[in-house]
Amino acid sequence: MKEKEKKGIAILGSTGSIGTQALEVIEAHPDKFEVIALTAENNVELLIRQAKKFKPDSVVIGNEKHYELLKNALSDDFVKVYAGKEAVSQIVEHSAVDIVLTAMVGYAGLLPTVNAIKSKKRIALANKETLVVAGELINRLSKEYKAEIIPVDSEHSAIFQCLAGELHNPIEKIYLTASGGPFRTFSLEEMQHIKLHQALNHPTWNMGAKITIDSASMMNKGLEAIEAKWLFDLKPEQIDVIIHPQSIVHSIVQFEDGSMKAQMGLPDMKLPIQYALSFPNRIKSKFKRFNFLDYPNLNFEQVDSKKFRNLAISFEVMKLGGNAACIMNAANEIAVEAFLNEKAGFMQIPEIIEKTLEKIEYLAHPNLDDYVFFDKKAREIAKTFI
Amino acid sequence: MKEKEKKGIAILGSTGSIGTQALEVIEAHPDKFEVIALTAENNVELLIRQAKKFKPDSVVIGNEKHYELLKNALSDDFVKVYAGKEAVSQIVEHSAVDIVLTAMVGYAGLLPTVNAIKSKKRIALANKETLVVAGELINRLSKEYKAEIIPVDSEHSAIFQCLAGELHNPIEKIYLTASGGPFRTFSLEEMQHIKLHQALNHPTWNMGAKITIDSASMMNKGLEAIEAKWLFDLKPEQIDVIIHPQSIVHSIVQFEDGSMKAQMGLPDMKLPIQYALSFPNRIKSKFKRFNFLDYPNLNFEQVDSKKFRNLAISFEVMKLGGNAACIMNAANEIAVEAFLNEKAGFMQIPEIIEKTLEKIEYLAHPNLDDYVFFDKKAREIAKTFI
Repeated sequence: MKEKEKKGIAILGSTGSIGTQALEVIEAHPDKFEVIALTAENNVELLIRQAKKFKPDSVVIGNEKHYELLKNALSDDFVKVYAGKEAVSQIVEHSAVDIVLTAMVGYAGLLPTVNAIKSKKRIALANKETLVVAGELINRLSKEYKAEIIPVDSEHSAIFQCLAGELHNPIEKIYLTASGGPFRTFSLEEMQHIKLHQALNHPTWNMGAKITIDSASMMNKGLEAIEAKWLFDLKPEQIDVIIHPQSIVHSIVQFEDGSMKAQMGLPDMKLPIQYALSFPNRIKSKFKRFNFLDYPNLNFEQVDSKKFRNLAISFEVMKLGGNAACIMNAANEIAVEAFLNEKAGFMQIPEIIEKTLEKIEYLAHPNLDDYVFFDKKAREIAKTFI
Repeated sequence: MKEKEKKGIAILGSTGSIGTQALEVIEAHPDKFEVIALTAENNVELLIRQAKKFKPDSVVIGNEKHYELLKNALSDDFVKVYAGKEAVSQIVEHSAVDIVLTAMVGYAGLLPTVNAIKSKKRIALANKETLVVAGELINRLSKEYKAEIIPVDSEHSAIFQCLAGELHNPIEKIYLTASGGPFRTFSLEEMQHIKLHQALNHPTWNMGAKITIDSASMMNKGLEAIEAKWLFDLKPEQIDVIIHPQSIVHSIVQFEDGSMKAQMGLPDMKLPIQYALSFPNRIKSKFKRFNFLDYPNLNFEQVDSKKFRNLAISFEVMKLGGNAACIMNAANEIAVEAFLNEKAGFMQIPEIIEKTLEKIEYLAHPNLDDYVFFDKKAREIAKTFI
């Protein structure tokens, strides 16, 4: 990426949790960052307010039925207004965009990310499903088009930060930390009776609904493990998950000499967001600092994979490769949606995923069209189990 | 340093704890390292065995009265034999030496280190007193002669490892971790009656006698804080000491964005020794790996500076600069020697240091001769308080 005074930023999913925090980071550093494009799927009210405040070149609303409202609200502003999934994918090509923050939810991140890579933009990757579904393809493209991928997830940002200056030293192992979510101390019996409001109440991170449920079910950690495999070129046996209820140590790398490096801090997504935008530089921030005396005990424990079957499924799927993670991810999105609508129980989520995986044929080397096909098929099949 | 197949190593203090562990590291990697010179002060028996095993070009015994014994023992080996402090200083200039590991005890490390810097060798610095006494001078020389200084102390190695790839990002703060030593849980009253054998029993690290006492009295951490100031160009207020009884997190860097990086692992000096020799590369090792499940709780607590006055003295001396640290270090060496000979009590150590500091005039900008003068003077004065 060329060095210029300000980096031009496109935020895909600007009205979500990551998107709004990214705008806070950008607002704090108007000398370093400039918003070029904002996109949202449905939250047109917030998108209008963001557009009026940050004055981007363009905004896109994914759901076309909100187009007129958006267009009219911004008629006095010098903002180009677009709508539809195609427009979301195309906006990343804008020549003033240096960095594309992919902060939309779920599988929807795949096609815009592919397009951003082909436009040689830096990807600040906050959409883990992109790598989970199509990691092999994304890695191949990012090498071909020389597009940097900087992870935004706190765990992967931690690993990425720990690898600074160490890229010539092979990784022996990584430890992804997990808070354990709201059900860490539940018995298997108690897990059968989980209510929606319990699952939505995450102990350390404040996030969107889908990722909060994924955190409670440990699917989020499974997706992160698969994401880590692709980001850092690891074998499944090089990835370990460890429960760390305080969410202070964000993840750990172990090198071949046995030395381990950890990245730590208070749980605050603004830090990894800012780092993905400013890398390789760090920007002085006013984020609250961690104080050891507030956390005299940092605890670590093993994951109970009987309670959290999603994690075991994720590692099996990671070993399988091919279209397996794509199917798992799609089935999970359907199952979580059903749970959020109180149409499925919490412990049905892994059941729906496993049944869907059983029903669909394995394909070792899918291309982009295959991913689109299997994603759609898995959603249809998963729905039959609800 | 030029890249060649094997690095030539000189170990100053090869019979001590660091020296013998360095030889274990070298022995494990004969394709990467070659012993060129070994020196010892008094332990001629071990030096003879090391010379016969590693076949260095030269050996030096600091105490000249052991010269004949050494010379005769090695008369059939192709090893050059020297004796005396001058010879210790000169051996580092040997053209086959790439790295000088300064692993001797105390102030004696200063002159050989200066000489090694002037010979443009990489310094693997295991002698913290060198920087404590004359940090300003050493830093100036290492810049002038472009000699790298790689710290070997586990805490400084931790910081140094965390700074890989981050040298362009300012440090906000560092946390040096301290085990707290054998008297962490003692009351101030109990501290008055400490016996020698108690002080020699360190809970997590197995080290030489002088550094073990310094660890028990927290002077070691004070010396490390001053060492860190010079190694990483920090102000006293950027250095914090935190008790971490398990000695797993070896130290922590906090950057200006608030992100913290820690280096971790089982307490094993072979790792930082190997890193100082192999940097910027890491060498695959068989060192025992850390397992989080063996350490489910990592604890952190504040230092009680009433119990450990040496730490407060060290920070005052750091703020003063000039010849203050030189005086403190000399007085401490005398006080610890007295304690080891059971001629002074444990809590007298800070008293002797404070009284010595009061008695000697402050000099803001000492040169090398001044350091030699004040070191000698401080020793004389400190002895009068025993």
